[in-house]
Amino acid sequence: MGMTMTEKILAAHAGLSEVKPGELITCKVDLCMANDVTAPLAIKEFRKIGINRVFDPEKIVLVPSHYAPNKDIQAAEQVKIMREFAREMGIKHYYEVGRGGIEHALVPEEGLAYPGMVYVGADSHTCTIGALGCFATGIGSTDLAAVWATGEIWLRVPETMKFVYTGRLPKWVTGKDLILATIGKISVSGALYRAMEFTGPVIHELPMSDRFTMTNMVIEAGGKNGIMPVDEVTLNFLRRHAPHTEEKWLIVESDPDAKYHSVWEIDCTNLEPLVAFPHSPDNVHPVSEAASLNITVDQVFIGSCTNGKIEDLRIAARLLKGRKVHPNVRLIVIPATQRIYLQAMREGLLEVLAEAGATIAVGTCGPCLGGYFGVLAAGERCLSTSNRNFIGRMGSPKGEIFLANSAVAAATAVLGRIAHPEELDGVPQEWSLWEFAA
Amino acid sequence: MGMTMTEKILAAHAGLSEVKPGELITCKVDLCMANDVTAPLAIKEFRKIGINRVFDPEKIVLVPSHYAPNKDIQAAEQVKIMREFAREMGIKHYYEVGRGGIEHALVPEEGLAYPGMVYVGADSHTCTIGALGCFATGIGSTDLAAVWATGEIWLRVPETMKFVYTGRLPKWVTGKDLILATIGKISVSGALYRAMEFTGPVIHELPMSDRFTMTNMVIEAGGKNGIMPVDEVTLNFLRRHAPHTEEKWLIVESDPDAKYHSVWEIDCTNLEPLVAFPHSPDNVHPVSEAASLNITVDQVFIGSCTNGKIEDLRIAARLLKGRKVHPNVRLIVIPATQRIYLQAMREGLLEVLAEAGATIAVGTCGPCLGGYFGVLAAGERCLSTSNRNFIGRMGSPKGEIFLANSAVAAATAVLGRIAHPEELDGVPQEWSLWEFAA
Repeated sequence: MGMTMTEKILAAHAGLSEVKPGELITCKVDLCMANDVTAPLAIKEFRKIGINRVFDPEKIVLVPSHYAPNKDIQAAEQVKIMREFAREMGIKHYYEVGRGGIEHALVPEEGLAYPGMVYVGADSHTCTIGALGCFATGIGSTDLAAVWATGEIWLRVPETMKFVYTGRLPKWVTGKDLILATIGKISVSGALYRAMEFTGPVIHELPMSDRFTMTNMVIEAGGKNGIMPVDEVTLNFLRRHAPHTEEKWLIVESDPDAKYHSVWEIDCTNLEPLVAFPHSPDNVHPVSEAASLNITVDQVFIGSCTNGKIEDLRIAARLLKGRKVHPNVRLIVIPATQRIYLQAMREGLLEVLAEAGATIAVGTCGPCLGGYFGVLAAGERCLSTSNRNFIGRMGSPKGEIFLANSAVAAATAVLGRIAHPEELDGVPQEWSLWEFAA
Repeated sequence: MGMTMTEKILAAHAGLSEVKPGELITCKVDLCMANDVTAPLAIKEFRKIGINRVFDPEKIVLVPSHYAPNKDIQAAEQVKIMREFAREMGIKHYYEVGRGGIEHALVPEEGLAYPGMVYVGADSHTCTIGALGCFATGIGSTDLAAVWATGEIWLRVPETMKFVYTGRLPKWVTGKDLILATIGKISVSGALYRAMEFTGPVIHELPMSDRFTMTNMVIEAGGKNGIMPVDEVTLNFLRRHAPHTEEKWLIVESDPDAKYHSVWEIDCTNLEPLVAFPHSPDNVHPVSEAASLNITVDQVFIGSCTNGKIEDLRIAARLLKGRKVHPNVRLIVIPATQRIYLQAMREGLLEVLAEAGATIAVGTCGPCLGGYFGVLAAGERCLSTSNRNFIGRMGSPKGEIFLANSAVAAATAVLGRIAHPEELDGVPQEWSLWEFAA
């Protein structure tokens, strides 16, 4: 009986030759992660266990990202707890502000993730990392405490849903639009506790940044994990970021006779950029429809673990070059990591964005979760490249959030209303979204 | 009977040929300012007056700076009130985030301030602007509402204290050290409701940025306003930033027979950089003494209306180039305005700072007032280039704040303990702090 990628990875980590959906298994964990919100809770639980060392200080990642640089005294105390725990336990992969960033962008960038690993993190968007062909899922802080103690995690093997992306990707359509299209199709509970396996020719044409954006939002469909086959694009990324991990790579493919919960084919040829309207990521509309409604915005946010990558900044800078942010709009740009920030500065992207009137910070989740640095007032409308637009997600419950890709975000920032990137004059016709792809 | 600079400016704005300290006068206001903390209160008071227009929409400045980009919902609502008031009243000088910055750096940069003006602002550090040879003072929000209505302010004419800086300024000693030395000498209540007039040969050698740092901290000695004579340095600054205001310039000098509350001479020749220890700006110690005490720090902040200028970033970048922030230290850098940020980026300073491990934002007061983006936990110690180190000013009341100049801040960030800049190896001997002066 064939297995899916997810099943193969879980079986290998459970010491079994085969696993089936629904089975309860215990897996060895290759890497685990927590942030400033979840680590303090996990530490509290860990203390209760009564042991004074973690299973492997090399396999634990701790990242202050959500309310760091410290939003307030409470945030400061939380980060302090995590920092002191890292020192006490000799945890190597603690990333101080100014030297880290948002965990889901940071972990692959730092070369900590690789194909075939089991990676768990106390943050729901841990699923991002599955784009590297590994099993990555979010867990609770209490579960994480147990992982710190034992190096193992209890899991129920998920069923797998297969998504096949065919056709040709039109201009301006990105990984963000593919995942929005998918969530729009299956709904925010359409993949509840299931693996989402993304395949098809269009996936193989995507740069890693777009792939991470897709797996990032698996949780918005309720998925347990997102996963993609390893191809040359993956390997190039790994050779650059994680060559030292090569001996641990476990590159698996789903068997031809693997059993899927369901198979979905999505023809990308006629897609256009999409916008998720309030208050759900599955409330998806074509950008042309949104543009026709004259939806003015007060704020545009380009950043987050979903779309705070160098490719996003390249797109935004390309569209904002020589233009100005609309007077009624605040444009907040937050590169996801310190390295992305530096890279964007060296490429001149931050200069373009700052000249246009963007406010720029670095490496914090900030406004994505209504944390800080761009929180919405009642009645305010934000177009955001992040992943969630639930009521109150970015501040006031009377605010409205629209999700889209970075090109739509940049066009919207300039025009002051939700706009198709093509609405911006002077974009060279020959320009391709992919010319910047890493 | 002779008058001081302050008296001459106030007399001119009260329509009097002479004023004396202690007199109550009503002055015409040339410019007034409020920020996101104080404007909403002023707006509430203004509404009570029952008129529906301000005295002159061209003479009002509104700046979101303290908790913007919005820290939280409350901050978002406050800024929204201010923004909507600006639109309603046709206020031209509203500076949105991404296009403004901290008001006391922004107002002179934008060419809104000039010699001889009366400038009031609902923020205690409004006194900063007096370095341009004008009368600038902080007022309450209720007073500001009355100014919006009438264009006038009631004032008691302050006595003037004269400070004469003589000798030669040693390397590493800046305007920050001169004002710390002064406050250390006279105490935090040493200039209560008095004008502080800064003169002497050393003042004339200072670039504008250092002068603004000095007048900025006048309020830390309780002063009503700080003022400096207009010289070629002032005029060069004005020609660059405010040439269109020239017809309004009123350049005055204190008369030789002006009556002073007191005259203080400060010989700068033997000064060294100073550090204000917790919990008062007048608790001043030489940096060599501080360095000998092995005072480790958790955070270094370079920014604020006091020392968030391009000159500060040049000094910091010069010292941090090729070096790394100490692993135990978070270095937070916040250029005071969007223009300074852009300039620093173009000069390569931000790249140096980010490479060293600094977290960089722009144009917010942020951690200076324990606002956000770098708030202290209990037991944490911060060396800050800002202006106040009262208990709890930057977060936890159990935190400690040390104030110093940007060179001391950079050295401290690298060494992880309060350090003299000379402790850093490899600083070229021939290097002069002034080579970058604008």
